[in-house]
Amino acid sequence: MATKAPTEGLKELNAWLDEHSLRGLWQGDAPMWREPDPFGPAKLWKWDTIRAGLEAAIELVPTDFRDTRRSIHLAHPSLDGGATNTLAMAVQLVKAGESVYAHRHTLAAMRFVIQGSRGVYTITDGEKCEMERGDLLVQRSWGWHNHVNSTQEHAMWIDCLDTGLMAMLKTAFFEPHSSEKFQMQHSPVDSAIRTPGALAPPGRLLQKLSYKWSETLPALEAMLPEDKSPFDGRCLEYRNPANGGPTFPTFSCWIQMLEPGEETAAHRHTANHLCYAFEGSGTTEVEGEEIVWEEGDFVVVPNWSWHRHRNSSNKEPVIIFSTTDRPLLEAIGVYREQAR
Amino acid sequence: MATKAPTEGLKELNAWLDEHSLRGLWQGDAPMWREPDPFGPAKLWKWDTIRAGLEAAIELVPTDFRDTRRSIHLAHPSLDGGATNTLAMAVQLVKAGESVYAHRHTLAAMRFVIQGSRGVYTITDGEKCEMERGDLLVQRSWGWHNHVNSTQEHAMWIDCLDTGLMAMLKTAFFEPHSSEKFQMQHSPVDSAIRTPGALAPPGRLLQKLSYKWSETLPALEAMLPEDKSPFDGRCLEYRNPANGGPTFPTFSCWIQMLEPGEETAAHRHTANHLCYAFEGSGTTEVEGEEIVWEEGDFVVVPNWSWHRHRNSSNKEPVIIFSTTDRPLLEAIGVYREQAR
Amino acid sequence: MATKAPTEGLKELNAWLDEHSLRGLWQGDAPMWREPDPFGPAKLWKWDTIRAGLEAAIELVPTDFRDTRRSIHLAHPSLDGGATNTLAMAVQLVKAGESVYAHRHTLAAMRFVIQGSRGVYTITDGEKCEMERGDLLVQRSWGWHNHVNSTQEHAMWIDCLDTGLMAMLKTAFFEPHSSEKFQMQHSPVDSAIRTPGALAPPGRLLQKLSYKWSETLPALEAMLPEDKSPFDGRCLEYRNPANGGPTFPTFSCWIQMLEPGEETAAHRHTANHLCYAFEGSGTTEVEGEEIVWEEGDFVVVPNWSWHRHRNSSNKEPVIIFSTTDRPLLEAIGVYREQAR
Amino acid sequence: MATKAPTEGLKELNAWLDEHSLRGLWQGDAPMWREPDPFGPAKLWKWDTIRAGLEAAIELVPTDFRDTRRSIHLAHPSLDGGATNTLAMAVQLVKAGESVYAHRHTLAAMRFVIQGSRGVYTITDGEKCEMERGDLLVQRSWGWHNHVNSTQEHAMWIDCLDTGLMAMLKTAFFEPHSSEKFQMQHSPVDSAIRTPGALAPPGRLLQKLSYKWSETLPALEAMLPEDKSPFDGRCLEYRNPANGGPTFPTFSCWIQMLEPGEETAAHRHTANHLCYAFEGSGTTEVEGEEIVWEEGDFVVVPNWSWHRHRNSSNKEPVIIFSTTDRPLLEAIGVYREQAR
Repeated sequence: MATKAPTEGLKELNAWLDEHSLRGLWQGDAPMWREPDPFGPAKLWKWDTIRAGLEAAIELVPTDFRDTRRSIHLAHPSLDGGATNTLAMAVQLVKAGESVYAHRHTLAAMRFVIQGSRGVYTITDGEKCEMERGDLLVQRSWGWHNHVNSTQEHAMWIDCLDTGLMAMLKTAFFEPHSSEKFQMQHSPVDSAIRTPGALAPPGRLLQKLSYKWSETLPALEAMLPEDKSPFDGRCLEYRNPANGGPTFPTFSCWIQMLEPGEETAAHRHTANHLCYAFEGSGTTEVEGEEIVWEEGDFVVVPNWSWHRHRNSSNKEPVIIFSTTDRPLLEAIGVYREQAR
Repeated sequence: MATKAPTEGLKELNAWLDEHSLRGLWQGDAPMWREPDPFGPAKLWKWDTIRAGLEAAIELVPTDFRDTRRSIHLAHPSLDGGATNTLAMAVQLVKAGESVYAHRHTLAAMRFVIQGSRGVYTITDGEKCEMERGDLLVQRSWGWHNHVNSTQEHAMWIDCLDTGLMAMLKTAFFEPHSSEKFQMQHSPVDSAIRTPGALAPPGRLLQKLSYKWSETLPALEAMLPEDKSPFDGRCLEYRNPANGGPTFPTFSCWIQMLEPGEETAAHRHTANHLCYAFEGSGTTEVEGEEIVWEEGDFVVVPNWSWHRHRNSSNKEPVIIFSTTDRPLLEAIGVYREQAR
Repeated sequence: MATKAPTEGLKELNAWLDEHSLRGLWQGDAPMWREPDPFGPAKLWKWDTIRAGLEAAIELVPTDFRDTRRSIHLAHPSLDGGATNTLAMAVQLVKAGESVYAHRHTLAAMRFVIQGSRGVYTITDGEKCEMERGDLLVQRSWGWHNHVNSTQEHAMWIDCLDTGLMAMLKTAFFEPHSSEKFQMQHSPVDSAIRTPGALAPPGRLLQKLSYKWSETLPALEAMLPEDKSPFDGRCLEYRNPANGGPTFPTFSCWIQMLEPGEETAAHRHTANHLCYAFEGSGTTEVEGEEIVWEEGDFVVVPNWSWHRHRNSSNKEPVIIFSTTDRPLLEAIGVYREQAR
Repeated sequence: MATKAPTEGLKELNAWLDEHSLRGLWQGDAPMWREPDPFGPAKLWKWDTIRAGLEAAIELVPTDFRDTRRSIHLAHPSLDGGATNTLAMAVQLVKAGESVYAHRHTLAAMRFVIQGSRGVYTITDGEKCEMERGDLLVQRSWGWHNHVNSTQEHAMWIDCLDTGLMAMLKTAFFEPHSSEKFQMQHSPVDSAIRTPGALAPPGRLLQKLSYKWSETLPALEAMLPEDKSPFDGRCLEYRNPANGGPTFPTFSCWIQMLEPGEETAAHRHTANHLCYAFEGSGTTEVEGEEIVWEEGDFVVVPNWSWHRHRNSSNKEPVIIFSTTDRPLLEAIGVYREQAR
């Protein structure tokens, strides 16, 4: 005998469907114009707080066992542990003379150096990348990597990964290495020299594992006025020279400079932006709220939120390092942008 | 005075970080090998139940007001309304003689026709696509579309959209049209003729809005034995001829045929598969559980779950239509597959 | 002692350079604006003449020894054997009941069927492509191929290859097969069914070896008026669905329709066009010269020559099949076009 | 009455076809295995000779009128003015204090600096590229460009262009500028800083107009032994970071280093190679002929010719700069390579 569903009323039908793990489209919102909600409000994290946390962690968090990292994540109050719905951002500290265990993962990952000098480096599958202030390192997926600080000073950098996206997609693989001594043998040459991103053996993919600050800052300063963006000032994207595209398939890294007193025009877009005030201080207005930040602070500008930046100094430029999930949205055809 | 964080113990530090919307990486799981969890268990939906729900909905759900659609979604018990974490799947019924209001959205969407004949069609921006049993229609993003059933029989089709992914990314735009009469003017020619997917004006993108069953079935039957997959039998992917790639950037559609008595080898992969038994009956073993299905039933095979299919008939072939989020995972470099 | 060159005068220096296989840039033309010359004048070949040649060849040219083909090439008077500087075009005749030896080559090649019905076919590496009037067959590079005519009528088709380009680049490989019986075993199914150009096994490249006239003509007729080109009327390009691009990397095939009495606007471009009047008759004006053609005639429109077409009938449409080296020029960035 | 062709004999038919600008395929070579011929023999040009020619040209060739350049081309004896069938190569000298008129063209062009220091530069559409020894400059197509030598020494560089290919394709556009003073206004910053090839404004194409020797040499020296080619030693290709591909669509530039005493293995390929001995001396064996070269000499290795290189010094490395039309052949699917 054929199955029958209740026809007394919609309420009864809906309940019956619910029992059978089904749902009528009519049970949703009434049809009307809809645009995306931001994942949450804008949010500021003060450098002072993060630094204080890291200093306490020096005493309390050892790294001398398998795969611990002294790293503090920005945990947006609207989310369960991420800085945005798609991205994680953290600050990591490796003590003078310390090295940390290797691991590998399928998450896309990068490091932007806050404090470091020659002798701080990351080793990926035997390749060495020096980590000097302002350098950006790109992590090769599923490559074993560990960090070494052979200098006399603590080293600190920003980690950004596509953790939220991969958690949602249920596709992350992770493996810790069992030995701290792993990869103590490595190439003596900085991979920034070996793979400058413009030269490669014939038939091989172009690679660029490291963007030196000594290359980035002059390019930022040499930008022509006509290349400035009304919304972002002087703005350069770190590109993958293998295809001319974004830093990673899932997110990209930007470096921006605002002239003294510069105020950008407001816009909004479906992508998130995670901003770090590398130099200078200013304000970011997000959906009418004014966020005041100083050097070292972090601000998240959530998706589809009107925003603009201002350099509050009349003397010094501001330099902002940021990451955005815009490349993913562009790849699947859902990036949109509006000027106010 | 500089901020200080507590150093009495990790517990105190963790609490302090929590107050400041920060989280130590050490607060997570102990480091160990990790691979992805399936988003939930495998799940079967019986056609009888869905059909019964639709029949009741004929009486209870009118479509004569703005943007209602008589459509029943598969609601996986582990999720809040989706068939998988990334995809939505539903069956829609348009009554004989009925037409539904137009709307448009940025979600990727497709229709696979269960019941229909010439006179059932979708209009997208004035282009007409006929909907005959077995036809696959591809929806152009942000195109106005409505459905018309000018025949004497009810029409039914499967809708699949990347709803879960877009909900997570917070990037969906939607707009209903205010008039049912919209687009009653349309091209008289089936777009399957106008844009066959192999011919286009010079300089214009190739397009294919519709894959006719009369083209799909012969291609499936004519496949050479050596082109069969050990895991999927005869298997063809509906491609986007503009780039040779998947049906959509975010998901792809497949059609499979299992010979009488055929049993596939087991494998698992990071992608989800949503299967619909278009013809025949059989079983799918997922992570040791045997799911028995008949013509018209739906089965979800969640990500990273071992699975294999069997045609339980020794006489009739099985034809399975399925959708998978594998293209998205491939585009961002995180598709993985293992044979058992 | 260091070498010295003469400094008495330019004439002496030039002579000295010449002796040493060197040439001063100053020995060239005086610097002035330069644009490309056409490789030669426009040229008409009458079908009557070609047909007469083929009929004589039936008697005089046997194909029962290694790799002979009864094929007559258009030999432009400005060139040494080609139809244009880059392309060769020929008409081939295979007698009723005849089959020809297999060969293979790295040249890109296609066949457009003038006379044929089911039972005339090309076999490429065991795949069978039927050849009915109006069908276009695409030859896979370096694939063994032979032709069979199992019908009661002679079969004829146009061959087009990138012979001129490859001669210039010195890169052609060619190999004849020693046996006429080769490939008598082949797939029984027309590859137009097996590889329709929109469906392919997951992970495999899309392929399309054959474009059936039964698909091409309806698409041409169903074109919307707004998709017509002012220069080419209704015009469709045969595309490679593996990438959405041209028929071949080096040249592309077009099919055009001019309405009764239609006259196109004049333009010129850096590409060559080789036109075949498949149906109807008309005129093509090239650089002021009026070329009158009838069904079956061939016209070459050389690069950078002003041209326009006219259908001289007020009742019947004209259908033109053509090939052009435009894809190569586009790929290397040197395609240019001007409207008069 | 229908046209008739002679049927007395093949000779009569062939003559008749010839009259009608037609040619039977049977008139060609007997069918047999064929592989490409080299365009000509290998050829050596001595630096002493070129230098002597340029010195004489200083006296005899003024550049103070429209678009003259003091440039001496390698003219291969088998060709009419080119260094290979596809490429032109020349050495150009701009005197101390001299500047030359601007022009523009659609030919792909590059400059590799033999003698130069800061103050020698090329201006392209207002962008300035400094020309120091070992730098490679990439010319943007159809960009106005002139050269300035503001130093006290003569400057010299290699020009390479795809002249032969473009002559064959009949697609070159050229325009001289009427004023020597043109573009005296230009950006004060070296474009090697402004467009380092790894950073670009969001949404803009990556560009790299200049590859500095100060970047190239360290990358060559830092290559890992396992990245060496058996045929080319240490070998790096100058890539276009906009797409990860070759320097130009039609040709690419390579820099190679042979260790003291190193001898490479023999191979042949369908591409040409034009080699310049930037540092050191050695021999190149081409089709059994031994060519001995010293610093500054040029050698052409024609297509499909067996060849190998040897560094004849046991103390000093050899550095070879070369250009090859391999990218074009790869793009159209006809690049082939064989190891001996």
